[in-house]
Amino acid sequence: MEIKIMKNILDRNQNKADEVRELVRSKNILMVNIISSPGAGKTTFLERTCEALTSKFKIGVIEGDVTTDRDARRLQKYDIPIVVINTERGCHLDSHSISKVIDSFDLDSLDILFIENVGNLICPTGFDLGEAFKLALVSTAEGDDKPAKYPLLFREAKAVVLNKMDLIPYTNFNYNSFMYDLGRIKRGITFFKVSCTKNTGLDEWFEWISEQRKELSGS
Amino acid sequence: MEIKIMKNILDRNQNKADEVRELVRSKNILMVNIISSPGAGKTTFLERTCEALTSKFKIGVIEGDVTTDRDARRLQKYDIPIVVINTERGCHLDSHSISKVIDSFDLDSLDILFIENVGNLICPTGFDLGEAFKLALVSTAEGDDKPAKYPLLFREAKAVVLNKMDLIPYTNFNYNSFMYDLGRIKRGITFFKVSCTKNTGLDEWFEWISEQRKELSGS
Repeated sequence: MEIKIMKNILDRNQNKADEVRELVRSKNILMVNIISSPGAGKTTFLERTCEALTSKFKIGVIEGDVTTDRDARRLQKYDIPIVVINTERGCHLDSHSISKVIDSFDLDSLDILFIENVGNLICPTGFDLGEAFKLALVSTAEGDDKPAKYPLLFREAKAVVLNKMDLIPYTNFNYNSFMYDLGRIKRGITFFKVSCTKNTGLDEWFEWISEQRKELSGS
Repeated sequence: MEIKIMKNILDRNQNKADEVRELVRSKNILMVNIISSPGAGKTTFLERTCEALTSKFKIGVIEGDVTTDRDARRLQKYDIPIVVINTERGCHLDSHSISKVIDSFDLDSLDILFIENVGNLICPTGFDLGEAFKLALVSTAEGDDKPAKYPLLFREAKAVVLNKMDLIPYTNFNYNSFMYDLGRIKRGITFFKVSCTKNTGLDEWFEWISEQRKELSGS
């Protein structure tokens, strides 16, 4: 019985996700669902991205957070539209919440909509929000075993960002081991190694995400 | 309707948790439920704890992991009983899984049973496993905002371990800000600052956990 109900929830999530996807595509908006552990650096990654790209693109952000608006407040300085979804005890966003807040944005004027999902490597992976793609963000401080331990996320993601590259000398993170596991899960996946606090390695990401947005409006 | 079903699940979880709690207490076993983000250092923390305490106590471990037995394999060298629960897509352990595996241990010969929950700061907090108490483990690399962003975990936990103290000089972690938020949530909570890779600050933890076990058998 429980399984049946879970299936119903997921089915309904999928229908709503498809609706959201159709809506944002019709408006030429690239919607990206960013998934990471707590504290891997999603918000700092969005800070760097806003600094680099708000002159080129109209960016909006949906902030999924359990209980606060702390991350949203960190992004306020970029003068972009931001909506916070507090999930309370919920460990992921779903397409219904996205559907409810999407109209708060002026969709005709947006180019890229980033969704910062709740910090969690498991459940967010299973919920389609209507995004163009999922982006997996992991940090070197979390250890090199994340692809092996959470393969579903890396299989689902279109690209992977490895953050906190500057911390590698102070940790036991084994880069080759990380890349080996990642390659076994998804050979040739688009991959960026960056430090968001030291502002290194991000140019490739800026170029790639700009390209993704341009391809969308070209199609 | 969904809420009613969720309540049933939680009710049943609570009944089973109480059964498990009664069983382990009757055997004088201290059961500790360790909750953290992915990669905060739970397994390394257990490695140091096994090194220090297996000469004093008979230790067992239940490893909650989405899909692998990697963490369990890291603990094999201590020659302790270990049971892995793979949750597949599940983001937390529940008391039913604990109840199913608890008899795999020789309960008459155990003193302390550590449960390494699935890496997640949200859902594990809401599920009583029958433990004596929850232990929250966070790392400095995750940022100083975890108590403010996940207050429920810190409210539920009996003690907090702040790991990766050695990384503070290389991060923007603000210790005072962390302690201020933690104090607002739970004034005077038992607190340990450690580095599990550098083996610092752990003696106080070893003493405290030993004391917890002794109080149990004294009562």
